[in-house]
Amino acid sequence: MSLLTVGSVAFDAIETPFGKTDKIIGGAGTYIALAASFYENNQKIVSVVGEDFPQEMIDLIASKGVDVTGLQIKKGEKTFFWSGKYHNDMNSRDTLVTELNVLGDFDPIIPDSYQNSDYLLLGNLSPQVQRQVIERLEKRPKLIAMDTMNFWMDIAMDELKKTLAMVDVLIINDEEARQLSKEYSLVKASKVIRDMGPKYLIIKKGEHGALLFHANRVFFAPALPLDDVFDPTGAGDTFAGGFMGYIASTDDFSFENMKRGVIVGSALASFCVEKFGTDRLLEITKENINERIERFVQLADFDMLQTI
Amino acid sequence: MSLLTVGSVAFDAIETPFGKTDKIIGGAGTYIALAASFYENNQKIVSVVGEDFPQEMIDLIASKGVDVTGLQIKKGEKTFFWSGKYHNDMNSRDTLVTELNVLGDFDPIIPDSYQNSDYLLLGNLSPQVQRQVIERLEKRPKLIAMDTMNFWMDIAMDELKKTLAMVDVLIINDEEARQLSKEYSLVKASKVIRDMGPKYLIIKKGEHGALLFHANRVFFAPALPLDDVFDPTGAGDTFAGGFMGYIASTDDFSFENMKRGVIVGSALASFCVEKFGTDRLLEITKENINERIERFVQLADFDMLQTI
Repeated sequence: MSLLTVGSVAFDAIETPFGKTDKIIGGAGTYIALAASFYENNQKIVSVVGEDFPQEMIDLIASKGVDVTGLQIKKGEKTFFWSGKYHNDMNSRDTLVTELNVLGDFDPIIPDSYQNSDYLLLGNLSPQVQRQVIERLEKRPKLIAMDTMNFWMDIAMDELKKTLAMVDVLIINDEEARQLSKEYSLVKASKVIRDMGPKYLIIKKGEHGALLFHANRVFFAPALPLDDVFDPTGAGDTFAGGFMGYIASTDDFSFENMKRGVIVGSALASFCVEKFGTDRLLEITKENINERIERFVQLADFDMLQTI
Repeated sequence: MSLLTVGSVAFDAIETPFGKTDKIIGGAGTYIALAASFYENNQKIVSVVGEDFPQEMIDLIASKGVDVTGLQIKKGEKTFFWSGKYHNDMNSRDTLVTELNVLGDFDPIIPDSYQNSDYLLLGNLSPQVQRQVIERLEKRPKLIAMDTMNFWMDIAMDELKKTLAMVDVLIINDEEARQLSKEYSLVKASKVIRDMGPKYLIIKKGEHGALLFHANRVFFAPALPLDDVFDPTGAGDTFAGGFMGYIASTDDFSFENMKRGVIVGSALASFCVEKFGTDRLLEITKENINERIERFVQLADFDMLQTI
């Protein structure tokens, strides 16, 4: 099947307790495309970069089976740039610089060849842009998933709610779920949020794993206990990319298969945090991923006896 | 098999965002005995109360298959009393009152009939008292588990380390594991702590589940997502009691069976937090517990296909 992703392709500069980077390649669309490429070889991306973005990186993304026709390159303009510094616990960070640049007036143009995409993943962008993409597709994809963040809840909650009403799967973290729902309990939050539109909700809890909610069902995916988290940047996008890449490639969005997708996304995210930026995603093989998925299986496996 | 528990039998007064109690029955020994009684019907308790402690409650504990010969009743003295107030997130609390009373000079006398106990659970008490119990047993139990808390790390770390060197299983929460090991990563913390003595380490993470570490293996037990945590008091002790009650009754401390014990402990703890104090533990049946264990099985269950 085909997976259409809309998301930023950008520069990041990152500082963690383990070190810092110069400008490196980042952006939700980049992480999603790279992660999904391990499963789905028919991807399409809608995004925008400036003239300063390296062609080699676009070629690299394309080499992973991603159609880059919809990746606009704006002459004389600069690529989106974000810089942040993580605190010692790696669970919080300060944004040092945000330069919107080409993303400031991003018009998500859908190439004709992208029509009839089977699956759609809306990476974190303004809810207006996310909604425009849905509206510009002549045929509704089989499944629409989206990410968002607290920033849009702060400044564009009404717009966000309009977009939420149009999607099937929302993928956010626990803090965002609490802000969006105004409920502390994630069970209560999941009900409030699913009343806003998405029938499926994935709440990512970082080192504490992830929850998948649908109807009266819930799945608790473990996180792999790691010695260190080197750089969390992109882990959430990598999770989303792995999840939707798996769902699109299997063309199955039953609850049972979504659970598998959550494990695949968790496995990919556990690689992402091992090095700066996309470095680790560019090294690993499908065999590495399968080994790691087996560790997740072992980690969560137990077998209650009849005799209890 | 027989399970010997040493732990406080006490009064608590609790305030949560949902309400407050007068003096109610509490104490680690109480929660442990009640939780373990669903599995092990040959329990013995070593503890101490004052003259003010209700005989009906002692009779109730005894009625659950717990030998109370070792429960000292100090004439003219008062029972240990703790009062605390939970913050809105339920993850932190302030201690309002601690009256040690009979616990101040507690001498854990082991009745002759308690010798040759098969399993030993040392509830949270001073590490000196915990060690005395081990030393007073003529024959080392098959498996010794202990709980402790940050208080003892603050004021008696050397004593705590001596006791830790003598036990097999340590059951603590994530914050305590970090304080004890001086490591933020729980994987690193688990190695440091297991070098102190316990071959098995259980790290409880509240709403985020629990981790069981042994040798190069790790098990991640989910927590049941709950609408509300009404009162967390005693949840940790209930977990420990359910775990050791299950291990003692099955007389099997293989890693596979310890995983089951962690699920049993988690299921019992998930009941404990639904009402104040021991109220919920006194209502539920084995059938309720089995239903809840089945929910844990469903919650964590996934099946990766061969085809990924």
